[in-house]
Amino acid sequence: MTSTQTTKATQITPGGGIESLVWGNRPLPDPAAHEVRIRVHAVSLNYRDLVIASGHYPLTHSRPLLPVSDGAGTVDAVGSAVTRVRVGDRVTANFVRDWISGTFGPAQQASSLGGEVDGMLADYVVLPEHALVPIPEALSFSEAAAMPCAGVTAWNALIFHGRVQAGHTVVVQGTGGVSLFALQIAKHSGARVIATTGDDAKAAKLQALGADLVINYRTTPDWGSVVRQHANGDGADHIVEVGGAGTLEQSLRAVRLGGEISVIGFLAGAAANLNLVPVILNHVRLNGIFVGSRQMFEEFLRTPIRPVIDRTFPFGEALDAYRYLRSGKHLGKVVLEN
Amino acid sequence: MTSTQTTKATQITPGGGIESLVWGNRPLPDPAAHEVRIRVHAVSLNYRDLVIASGHYPLTHSRPLLPVSDGAGTVDAVGSAVTRVRVGDRVTANFVRDWISGTFGPAQQASSLGGEVDGMLADYVVLPEHALVPIPEALSFSEAAAMPCAGVTAWNALIFHGRVQAGHTVVVQGTGGVSLFALQIAKHSGARVIATTGDDAKAAKLQALGADLVINYRTTPDWGSVVRQHANGDGADHIVEVGGAGTLEQSLRAVRLGGEISVIGFLAGAAANLNLVPVILNHVRLNGIFVGSRQMFEEFLRTPIRPVIDRTFPFGEALDAYRYLRSGKHLGKVVLEN
Amino acid sequence: MTSTQTTKATQITPGGGIESLVWGNRPLPDPAAHEVRIRVHAVSLNYRDLVIASGHYPLTHSRPLLPVSDGAGTVDAVGSAVTRVRVGDRVTANFVRDWISGTFGPAQQASSLGGEVDGMLADYVVLPEHALVPIPEALSFSEAAAMPCAGVTAWNALIFHGRVQAGHTVVVQGTGGVSLFALQIAKHSGARVIATTGDDAKAAKLQALGADLVINYRTTPDWGSVVRQHANGDGADHIVEVGGAGTLEQSLRAVRLGGEISVIGFLAGAAANLNLVPVILNHVRLNGIFVGSRQMFEEFLRTPIRPVIDRTFPFGEALDAYRYLRSGKHLGKVVLEN
Amino acid sequence: MTSTQTTKATQITPGGGIESLVWGNRPLPDPAAHEVRIRVHAVSLNYRDLVIASGHYPLTHSRPLLPVSDGAGTVDAVGSAVTRVRVGDRVTANFVRDWISGTFGPAQQASSLGGEVDGMLADYVVLPEHALVPIPEALSFSEAAAMPCAGVTAWNALIFHGRVQAGHTVVVQGTGGVSLFALQIAKHSGARVIATTGDDAKAAKLQALGADLVINYRTTPDWGSVVRQHANGDGADHIVEVGGAGTLEQSLRAVRLGGEISVIGFLAGAAANLNLVPVILNHVRLNGIFVGSRQMFEEFLRTPIRPVIDRTFPFGEALDAYRYLRSGKHLGKVVLEN
Repeated sequence: MTSTQTTKATQITPGGGIESLVWGNRPLPDPAAHEVRIRVHAVSLNYRDLVIASGHYPLTHSRPLLPVSDGAGTVDAVGSAVTRVRVGDRVTANFVRDWISGTFGPAQQASSLGGEVDGMLADYVVLPEHALVPIPEALSFSEAAAMPCAGVTAWNALIFHGRVQAGHTVVVQGTGGVSLFALQIAKHSGARVIATTGDDAKAAKLQALGADLVINYRTTPDWGSVVRQHANGDGADHIVEVGGAGTLEQSLRAVRLGGEISVIGFLAGAAANLNLVPVILNHVRLNGIFVGSRQMFEEFLRTPIRPVIDRTFPFGEALDAYRYLRSGKHLGKVVLEN
Repeated sequence: MTSTQTTKATQITPGGGIESLVWGNRPLPDPAAHEVRIRVHAVSLNYRDLVIASGHYPLTHSRPLLPVSDGAGTVDAVGSAVTRVRVGDRVTANFVRDWISGTFGPAQQASSLGGEVDGMLADYVVLPEHALVPIPEALSFSEAAAMPCAGVTAWNALIFHGRVQAGHTVVVQGTGGVSLFALQIAKHSGARVIATTGDDAKAAKLQALGADLVINYRTTPDWGSVVRQHANGDGADHIVEVGGAGTLEQSLRAVRLGGEISVIGFLAGAAANLNLVPVILNHVRLNGIFVGSRQMFEEFLRTPIRPVIDRTFPFGEALDAYRYLRSGKHLGKVVLEN
Repeated sequence: MTSTQTTKATQITPGGGIESLVWGNRPLPDPAAHEVRIRVHAVSLNYRDLVIASGHYPLTHSRPLLPVSDGAGTVDAVGSAVTRVRVGDRVTANFVRDWISGTFGPAQQASSLGGEVDGMLADYVVLPEHALVPIPEALSFSEAAAMPCAGVTAWNALIFHGRVQAGHTVVVQGTGGVSLFALQIAKHSGARVIATTGDDAKAAKLQALGADLVINYRTTPDWGSVVRQHANGDGADHIVEVGGAGTLEQSLRAVRLGGEISVIGFLAGAAANLNLVPVILNHVRLNGIFVGSRQMFEEFLRTPIRPVIDRTFPFGEALDAYRYLRSGKHLGKVVLEN
Repeated sequence: MTSTQTTKATQITPGGGIESLVWGNRPLPDPAAHEVRIRVHAVSLNYRDLVIASGHYPLTHSRPLLPVSDGAGTVDAVGSAVTRVRVGDRVTANFVRDWISGTFGPAQQASSLGGEVDGMLADYVVLPEHALVPIPEALSFSEAAAMPCAGVTAWNALIFHGRVQAGHTVVVQGTGGVSLFALQIAKHSGARVIATTGDDAKAAKLQALGADLVINYRTTPDWGSVVRQHANGDGADHIVEVGGAGTLEQSLRAVRLGGEISVIGFLAGAAANLNLVPVILNHVRLNGIFVGSRQMFEEFLRTPIRPVIDRTFPFGEALDAYRYLRSGKHLGKVVLEN
């Protein structure tokens, strides 16, 4: 299958900043035997996309790449050996492209979309069929595009590894994408949720999403002890830790003996001065989470959870969308529609 | 049941150093309804006993206490309601006295022998029946006394939480009690073991115990990379981390993607400067281990593993035994016999 | 502590039928050191109580016993060594009296209330403190008394062993106590529930409790195939099997490849003609469930789930309550209040 | 890539008996983009191959097929997109061709080699690259070819699902392929093994392979009770049940409370008259096992376990090999070499 059609796609240069994002033309890409071409209808941005632009993301390269991991669209053409999808199917793709299920290894680590391999911010993209996940009827393209990175990370943290159950107490931090999905997943699983924020205006939104208690970490810097009091006096069963060095100390106060901290957010401060004493004496588990497998994504999509979308931009205003994300004014996902 | 018999027991003053250890007389203690009096035949020392003497152990108090967590003996008298043991039974006791099975909580944390509550270095001790574990026929009192703290810690790390299986690669560090038991448990479970040591003379002993590879961390400071090469190129499945801040960086290099590090040894440096980036991107689990439950101990005792005993002292030379332990010349447990 | 007060308690003779139930007087029982005397305010009946009366329950004896496993009340007196509760505390007790947590063994099996050991249908009962579970503020005595046997069985089946998660599909059968709790627990955990019943009048009640789909097994005898269609075309993740030989064949049709069937109800037909072919080729797990541990009960009570109570009788009309239960007209628990 | 070379391959007609096995010529098959052509050097037979020939195997079709699931050889040619192997690599293939890891579903079930899809008894076969597993240096082609079906089944039963650990007691039944691998895997994992056999001459061989106790089920028909006595008085932790209806009753006597029975062998009697009472009251788990995933096979191959090979035939004497297998005289695998 060959084609002379010209299509539009972006490129960004790691280290060049978000201003290095450019749109260009390229020939319509053709799928190989096990590949699928997707007409992209929506993508969503993650904080990771800003870090990749800044050049500080570890799992990327220095030459220009097609950015943005999260996208959704329609199957436009399929390779000769494709069996999992058909032309016209609505699909999204798993962030760790080659992690279908089972163990996570070097081959998986090297296949993250929009970082190690090309991403989704283009009119058409080509992906191996094994990376694709059907979109449930109830979700729009924009909603589906909002889920891969942050949603699967939260699912892996709380459900696949964390095994959160009804009656547990879960702590989520702030209003980033992973935290909002974690709040929704925890509530949908029957857990009690304590959320932290530095902004009282956002507290109301967190409560509207189901948070049972919201703590302002600016006015209550020792929020870990407050969590402990409210969680049966014992501490939380699970902390979704996205703050890195800045919050790990409080998380260790907030977690119950024998509890678990999912470690996700290195970006706010990678080198934590971790005190190992409470980790050991309190029998705490720190669980590094790097998004998740396609099987986790498929499990997540069997729930009726819908993402919180803050604002939508057209594809042509991609740079504005990046800037808006950088401003930190959002609460929910920033989506680009095509 | 009352008694006027006088018996001998030790006391040590946390913060007073090991030289504060004294023997004294006390009335023969009587067991209450659910308690058991044990004639102690052997105890073993752990590095923790030195730290308690120094006053730097977190889970202890400042007044004098009956030291030493690990002991074994014969049931001498039972309370009126006791059903689990009979006079004459050979028994040892679980380090975390009140952790029978299931979840670990504050009540369990507050019941460690020779720290939070009285220990075993006395002619007679009284313990609740639920803390006792029968000694298998194949083990002597000295061998049984060598197992509670270090053995159960290694079992919890590798088997109960770690789920080490045949074909896995396990890293153990140095020649302390936990590390030797971890080596034995890993080998007995069909794993491959890579051991580190700073002393070539100890390397031979580690190999005699079954280590498949021994790395001298003094001559090979980047031992994490060497482990990675030897473990299928991927890294070890499990690291038993006893070095704290000093070794965690290398352990993070040595562990495979998705692997586990059991965090045990805070004593050599509690405040680790932990780089969270590899924890997250490599999907690593750090699992704080605080000894274990009676059920874990019972499981451990169903294996034919026998402890490595370095040297035996009579009860009367307890201070010499402490000093010998402090000298660091031992490889294996230091035992006191009565 | 001694007492000459006379109190009322029931006895039933296994094999004598429910008509052998009699009330009699006995001295106020005194708690030993680790025991607690409870002023009983409510008990609830289970189908097992009928089977014990009939003499067909395997884990019981032939002499008269104090019946009924499930009860709740106020701590009235405590033994000298009791630490877990205080006079005045509101408590219920775990069905398997001596199963606190961890592994299930012969000692646990031999300690089921109202069968192997004395039960709760008396003004005052004495129990070991380790069997007690505090009642959350939100629950009345009658509600708490409705939960031990059926509620903990459902929790063990779906949460502790079954690890049901959001997005799963769960099948519950009929309107017995375990099935109603299983429905509530599954819904509260974010699962989709398909319920079966032979009575259209009960279907509405099952839907009101949250069932997403109710199938009448009389008009749809091949309900297993219908479940398969409605559960993503793949079958249910989990079946709570209470029908024994009568329903196992359909359950094997309803469960997905790699799914789990919790086997609970042997009473309707113990000797199942089980076809092992689908068990093996479909990688199915059959999990025998015998109520559960105190830890499971405590976990369950951290959820806001409240039992469905069908009807309440005064203690004095215990035999009427048994007869009502035997009539099968109830949907929800039959409770006796004191 | 096209070829006019003629190669030899077998066919068998399900229902036609093993005598329907014929050799024929076919063109050298060419691999598609993600496929690999293998020069087959060895295959091994399983009891399933006899059942397929008899027409009684459920997961097969009625037209002639290329039989035998287990084989090993050298990569001879690779499709254009292949990345996992290179020409010259020594490889074997996973029995469930399309089960890489994670959940087992209909697509996996429909891909078993030599049953649902073509098998390995040919000079050259073509398989998707994802089905292939590299052969460790220590194993010959014949040894590697002896492992896929029986070895992975035993691994899945005991390690992946069964989580057998050091100190456990495992029961294996008879001297079939799965049972011998289960014996080896259990011993290599530090478990104690009790084996049953009906033939005293085979008992010695089982002991030579490491069985701690061998029971002759002909002279000791109530072997379940004997197992119970020898396994700490409590019963075995794990039974590898291959006898189906004929042995399940004894297995339920042999297993400890809370223990597990891996259900594998339906062939000797599919419709078991299963008494659910002990399953429920003893909290037993019955776990249907259908071979396993490629990840399980890879884990298994990290152990030094080598298969027991009874006898080797040349490819040309395939029918004789089938007959020898049918005779039941073997103890260990029957291998065909090319």
